[in-house]
Amino acid sequence: MSKIPVAVLAATGSVGQRFVQLLDNHPWFEVVALTGSERGHGKTYGEVCRWLLPEPMPDWARMMPVLPSEAESLNGARLAFSALPADIARQVEPALAQAGIGVCSNASAYRREPDVPLLIPEVNPEHARLVEVQRRRRGWTGWITTNPNCTSTGMTIALKALQDAFGLKRVFAVSLQALSGAGYPGVASLDIADNVIPFISGEEDKVEWEPRKMLGKLEGEEIRLAEFGISAHTNRVAVTDGHLVCLSVELAGRAAPEQAAAVLAEYEAPAPVADLPSVARPVIVVREEENRPQPRLDRMTGRGMTTVVGRVRPDALFDLRLTVLSHNTIRGAAGGSLLNAELMVRLGYVS
Amino acid sequence: MSKIPVAVLAATGSVGQRFVQLLDNHPWFEVVALTGSERGHGKTYGEVCRWLLPEPMPDWARMMPVLPSEAESLNGARLAFSALPADIARQVEPALAQAGIGVCSNASAYRREPDVPLLIPEVNPEHARLVEVQRRRRGWTGWITTNPNCTSTGMTIALKALQDAFGLKRVFAVSLQALSGAGYPGVASLDIADNVIPFISGEEDKVEWEPRKMLGKLEGEEIRLAEFGISAHTNRVAVTDGHLVCLSVELAGRAAPEQAAAVLAEYEAPAPVADLPSVARPVIVVREEENRPQPRLDRMTGRGMTTVVGRVRPDALFDLRLTVLSHNTIRGAAGGSLLNAELMVRLGYVS
Amino acid sequence: MSKIPVAVLAATGSVGQRFVQLLDNHPWFEVVALTGSERGHGKTYGEVCRWLLPEPMPDWARMMPVLPSEAESLNGARLAFSALPADIARQVEPALAQAGIGVCSNASAYRREPDVPLLIPEVNPEHARLVEVQRRRRGWTGWITTNPNCTSTGMTIALKALQDAFGLKRVFAVSLQALSGAGYPGVASLDIADNVIPFISGEEDKVEWEPRKMLGKLEGEEIRLAEFGISAHTNRVAVTDGHLVCLSVELAGRAAPEQAAAVLAEYEAPAPVADLPSVARPVIVVREEENRPQPRLDRMTGRGMTTVVGRVRPDALFDLRLTVLSHNTIRGAAGGSLLNAELMVRLGYVS
Amino acid sequence: MSKIPVAVLAATGSVGQRFVQLLDNHPWFEVVALTGSERGHGKTYGEVCRWLLPEPMPDWARMMPVLPSEAESLNGARLAFSALPADIARQVEPALAQAGIGVCSNASAYRREPDVPLLIPEVNPEHARLVEVQRRRRGWTGWITTNPNCTSTGMTIALKALQDAFGLKRVFAVSLQALSGAGYPGVASLDIADNVIPFISGEEDKVEWEPRKMLGKLEGEEIRLAEFGISAHTNRVAVTDGHLVCLSVELAGRAAPEQAAAVLAEYEAPAPVADLPSVARPVIVVREEENRPQPRLDRMTGRGMTTVVGRVRPDALFDLRLTVLSHNTIRGAAGGSLLNAELMVRLGYVS
Repeated sequence: MSKIPVAVLAATGSVGQRFVQLLDNHPWFEVVALTGSERGHGKTYGEVCRWLLPEPMPDWARMMPVLPSEAESLNGARLAFSALPADIARQVEPALAQAGIGVCSNASAYRREPDVPLLIPEVNPEHARLVEVQRRRRGWTGWITTNPNCTSTGMTIALKALQDAFGLKRVFAVSLQALSGAGYPGVASLDIADNVIPFISGEEDKVEWEPRKMLGKLEGEEIRLAEFGISAHTNRVAVTDGHLVCLSVELAGRAAPEQAAAVLAEYEAPAPVADLPSVARPVIVVREEENRPQPRLDRMTGRGMTTVVGRVRPDALFDLRLTVLSHNTIRGAAGGSLLNAELMVRLGYVS
Repeated sequence: MSKIPVAVLAATGSVGQRFVQLLDNHPWFEVVALTGSERGHGKTYGEVCRWLLPEPMPDWARMMPVLPSEAESLNGARLAFSALPADIARQVEPALAQAGIGVCSNASAYRREPDVPLLIPEVNPEHARLVEVQRRRRGWTGWITTNPNCTSTGMTIALKALQDAFGLKRVFAVSLQALSGAGYPGVASLDIADNVIPFISGEEDKVEWEPRKMLGKLEGEEIRLAEFGISAHTNRVAVTDGHLVCLSVELAGRAAPEQAAAVLAEYEAPAPVADLPSVARPVIVVREEENRPQPRLDRMTGRGMTTVVGRVRPDALFDLRLTVLSHNTIRGAAGGSLLNAELMVRLGYVS
Repeated sequence: MSKIPVAVLAATGSVGQRFVQLLDNHPWFEVVALTGSERGHGKTYGEVCRWLLPEPMPDWARMMPVLPSEAESLNGARLAFSALPADIARQVEPALAQAGIGVCSNASAYRREPDVPLLIPEVNPEHARLVEVQRRRRGWTGWITTNPNCTSTGMTIALKALQDAFGLKRVFAVSLQALSGAGYPGVASLDIADNVIPFISGEEDKVEWEPRKMLGKLEGEEIRLAEFGISAHTNRVAVTDGHLVCLSVELAGRAAPEQAAAVLAEYEAPAPVADLPSVARPVIVVREEENRPQPRLDRMTGRGMTTVVGRVRPDALFDLRLTVLSHNTIRGAAGGSLLNAELMVRLGYVS
Repeated sequence: MSKIPVAVLAATGSVGQRFVQLLDNHPWFEVVALTGSERGHGKTYGEVCRWLLPEPMPDWARMMPVLPSEAESLNGARLAFSALPADIARQVEPALAQAGIGVCSNASAYRREPDVPLLIPEVNPEHARLVEVQRRRRGWTGWITTNPNCTSTGMTIALKALQDAFGLKRVFAVSLQALSGAGYPGVASLDIADNVIPFISGEEDKVEWEPRKMLGKLEGEEIRLAEFGISAHTNRVAVTDGHLVCLSVELAGRAAPEQAAAVLAEYEAPAPVADLPSVARPVIVVREEENRPQPRLDRMTGRGMTTVVGRVRPDALFDLRLTVLSHNTIRGAAGGSLLNAELMVRLGYVS
């Protein structure tokens, strides 16, 4: 089988670089176009991109030209991975979907649209069907799917397992987020050296809303938000990669911490997802040590796709306290989007 | 008036050093004894102490001998500041109180004893009266007072202002704590570089209990714990000094964030405390910026004694969200203990 | 005596802020104008400036308008402290000197001009006389003096003491430089977290040349560069403030390390400088411990103006090895420039 | 061919863990014994070891018992990898060699013995022959080889290429060393946060001597030290892994930087070494960017075995300046020792 031609939009940024790295030797996809801002047009990716990953830039990427983010420039790509900023994504992504391209977007621009799926394949693959509504309403031959914010991702995966087993009522979430979540150049070193920044613009709104869409039910043509409430505080800390979230969870039913830990550890991806190339294996790891998960030690678990949970214990006000770690640029961004694309292929939405 | 002779117990450790630094040029107190572990006896403080503060070691301290932590070695000190580890404090502190010395302890050993005041002078100076019960019950001519855990301190000050104005029902607290809170050598650099540790031994218990004692009522001879509940997650981050706490607070009454911010900013220390030499001036600063308080920028507010609050905003589940910063080795340890001593002098408990 | 009216150019940047902070309560100077880039004109300093120092913004600065960097806007300032970028300094500073203002510049723009003094008052105050040549040649009624690059500063002070005592032949210098040296936002956190950057643009050239001008002789109307050679490697490390430099020095004469340490510790500022308000007291501190100086512990020695030297020991190839620490935004930038202004006042160049 | 049974001595420490990780799935070696200090005897490796690597602990290691470091406890191991502290190594390693075991030691204890090879296989494999002298003189049936100090390693590899091509006269070396080089717990976080430590005990002596042994000539039964001189300053910085060294090199012959870069990039391992399983591939990478090598981005080049060189440029005093990076726990410790073992097998010294 020949590989599916794909494009990476905004490939020179930090999430774009992660897309390029994860697409290296992908079994299903072949990158045929890399896009970037106007000042890079006419140059090669190797010339324009300030590569920031420890993994080397793939040789095939180095010589590719940097192209505009327009359907006619994408060399026949059937899928586009979007690392565009939200404001640009809002213009570009519909134009591509209009032109018949499937867009797997890491941008926040369309996450809240009722007919755009916000997907974590291990959590809510059935929401993918929303693209049919989307196509019909908007007259597109392509589509847009989105993956959640990097902080929402890991906690939603853990909450899904708890929701299935015990039901959810209320969730307190406090994040300690890595620097790479702010892109590049992102956070100034003088702002974070010997410091914590207790604020990330727009983040708390996303964390309080996105999990409720993903854990909601697709009823007919729309998603009914899950009814539990979330309160979030989001903080930036001096860590390169890996977002940690402290959760206190009120359940609908009773659950001893041991039961909850077992439910988390045994959580499995639904059938159409379990054997996708980039699926998290396992979906969740539960650490027994009293001081884990830790970003530096645990973020690469399952090639950065596994959600690592620890410190599952009783809560003085709600039912459970736990700590959740997720790699923000892999699981929470490029890797999540890539897995969405694999799901869309599996479900037959890529022709 | 001649100065009151005082001792610092465990003066060579990180909290002990802070005591020495804060006692330099103190208007009421004069250090007459510094104690340390046995291997330092017979040497000078300058020889034994690996001084870790940017402020220079005071000259008077450098030449003092390192003494045993025993009443007869303290050169007539009337007050002893204790930076002893909890297990040693449990033995040493009662012996000194027995011998007529007032002990202002930073150790956790006696914080939970019903007849030992757990004091923040700006919050609950009336609890100091418990030492009378303590003396009577235990037959001491001296006494022990304690200051709270470094994380409990700042949040209790903020909660006190809210309790007075609106009443408290439930509190979620998630801390991001500085390295100096673990003493020296404390946290290994390899454990915290590019990392967060989501666990601090024994800390969550303290944070869930201590504020309730301090915000409780002294009724007759005992303190009735305040009835609100606390859930705490405690984390270590790569910051030298300054503990940050994210709070979500359920109030008994209604309060708009602006009202709460005003109440916090206007909080004043009770009468016998307001003009003590080391009192926080002001007690609380409320920052208006969206991204404050920050440890590096705000920890030294009010010479490290002021509690800095920011991001006072509504909470999706409870009433208020806010962020609280407090200098852990000054306000939350040596400075707090020193202020306790000043209160005890003011109240006539030091003769 | 009424205070001398002064202006701070580019007052909103990181060096500009340090000027504002150091000028708070200055005994000789009163700030009458703060300048900034065009987008700030018509606003107050408090509105425009993202204040980054732990010390609070002085109240007098908060309400001052942000002005253009033009002579007619400076409200009669007799002195201007320049934190301008080099390219803008090149235009603005001569215009002010032309208009009769004395410019004390931290910019690199004019450091290499033969008739512009590059000054460290404790090292080469006699070079100040060059402004007379400058005025005559350029027809200015004001003048420009410059202070050296932040890395050159500390090492030049140490080298001056060694030059006076033993003569200098060759110097190897390797720096470990703080983040604040790059301004704000400066170094991206993702570039320096868990990392070192072995390159700082233009820095090695400055470090290899500037000390030779300062340690050179003013002969007639020009400075003869000192004849020793310097090889420099400059590196950026994850430290907020404080540049550390490792030096290996070949001397003209012989010197045991103990002699060299004594010469360094005893170095005194020349007569017209020794009692200036901002002079380093002492000029050099020599630490005896095997592991000092360290940036976090030693950078504030002498309110950030003292050069701290340690590890004075033999060198396997040259004569001496030593380590030098200097606060880069105080001693190496704003504080150095401020001391230059004090020298110019003392020498009668400010009317 | 069945695998060669090997032991790891002091397997629970940080270098010991790296040995265990690198030996996982090794094509030639099978671990049959893990040793540790007495308090671990009778427990499993999984129970005793505080595993600090991001790579997971191999399953086979988890259940192995922690044994004493004695020949009779090593389950027939033919080779022992030693991560012992120097003082214990001095006792244990000869006892094992006496008992017929080949010891590949990372300890400094025997590096300076005239009959013990100090080996980097890509540099001086011919020195391995010294073990024949060693056996004869000491009456051993086994042997000891050592690998150099972690800082000496990378710079010696770079210097070897330059020595071969141009000859060496003098070398200035200033290191910026990672935290993992100090073992665990090693450097206290409070000592290195927002800081640099300009001192590492014993390190400068090693760096000034070891390269001269490795780059020396084996003449008859002894090594004549290479005749160039080295001056070293060693510093600790807040980096997890990867030692950076700034070098200024005086050559015997002339070399333009481009020639030197080419010589470095083209350096190849001698014949018996080039196809060993753990050999560096390539031996040296020369980066062209002005700001590389950087520890975080470059340390894992060639699975952590490749030496990365950058900034090859003229020196103001000597001939060349360059920056060298090497992974200190892989190339500079466990990986280097492992490669030594492979060389010894290849040369027939393991039976």
